[in-house]
Amino acid sequence: MSLLPPQILRAIEEFQKLPGVGMKSAERLVFHLLRTTRGSPETLGNALLELKRELKYCVQCQMVTTRERCDICEDPSRDASMILVVEEPLEVIAFERTQYKGVYHVLHGVLSPIDGMGPEQLKVRELVDRCKAGGTTAEASAKAVGIREVIVATDPDVEGEATASFLREKLKTLVPQITRLAHGLPMGADIEFADQVTLKGALDGRRSL
Amino acid sequence: MSLLPPQILRAIEEFQKLPGVGMKSAERLVFHLLRTTRGSPETLGNALLELKRELKYCVQCQMVTTRERCDICEDPSRDASMILVVEEPLEVIAFERTQYKGVYHVLHGVLSPIDGMGPEQLKVRELVDRCKAGGTTAEASAKAVGIREVIVATDPDVEGEATASFLREKLKTLVPQITRLAHGLPMGADIEFADQVTLKGALDGRRSL
Repeated sequence: MSLLPPQILRAIEEFQKLPGVGMKSAERLVFHLLRTTRGSPETLGNALLELKRELKYCVQCQMVTTRERCDICEDPSRDASMILVVEEPLEVIAFERTQYKGVYHVLHGVLSPIDGMGPEQLKVRELVDRCKAGGTTAEASAKAVGIREVIVATDPDVEGEATASFLREKLKTLVPQITRLAHGLPMGADIEFADQVTLKGALDGRRSL
Repeated sequence: MSLLPPQILRAIEEFQKLPGVGMKSAERLVFHLLRTTRGSPETLGNALLELKRELKYCVQCQMVTTRERCDICEDPSRDASMILVVEEPLEVIAFERTQYKGVYHVLHGVLSPIDGMGPEQLKVRELVDRCKAGGTTAEASAKAVGIREVIVATDPDVEGEATASFLREKLKTLVPQITRLAHGLPMGADIEFADQVTLKGALDGRRSL
């Protein structure tokens, strides 16, 4: 392979670090970029450098933003007494499509010792500080926004459940109410094929008609 | 989606231009880069910008290189009278693993009108010039290297066959011998499952034992 110029080998190597991209895919991507008229190594490269240069995390909720605080935290019409805790920034976008009117906290991961993700790798301390102070900024403290409820919306899998338990222990003396998203059948599901944990969740969480 | 900063949207958009990368994969790649400790938007971005900045095509064979002429064209031990014509730079690497001792010419694509690929989009003119002059550089002309054989090694598919026919017409008055790679059974193949075109090729090209 040393016949290829080092620049190409380096680009192939960097692409291979992406999830789901092996040696052959990485080669294909690099040579595609060299040849295509849609996009180019330059536009993708510049877009990635801009990510690094201009992106910040909101000082309050840790959402990706270009400013000190994100649009949601800055919006006075949002209910700042209710915090929805999610794993990833994209999950904020998903909840924004619902009618949710509270604010968020992005953990940037879940507890997963096998992947080296402990509480220090997550934005847990920021969440605890926020629940203590009712907000990390002077204005929020001045308004004395008490946190009424923290909704833990980590994924319903092993890591997500472990993270939820961990957060409950951390927050139970600070926040009046800590809740977890309901388990149950998704819309359009077929009960015949639902797994037993989901069915048990749906039974336990049943509501009066 | 406008909740996400424009830098993230732009990176997602650029990733989506890659083959096999859709909206969801592009989102996943961008957020992976923002979070991972292996690689970063910066290292991948810089690697791509270097591609653009430092990569050239060999003036003779059009292989990717960092210099005026590639290592193979510069190697005096190679047989410059035999040119193997390939579609892509990676195919040069594949042939270098065989005992091939001639030189190459990279077309950078195949004829494919549906994708807007005509002879002008390929390095066809460079190949014709090379066969006329026996090389595009002064040294090569001085050595008066006559091209003895052009081996057309485009893929054995519709576009590759069309490109091979086109090249034969272009080169037949310039080069004594124009050949095409043999069709036949690949190593380890199962005759039972071979398609009829491959089997016919293997029969037509049969050799005495």
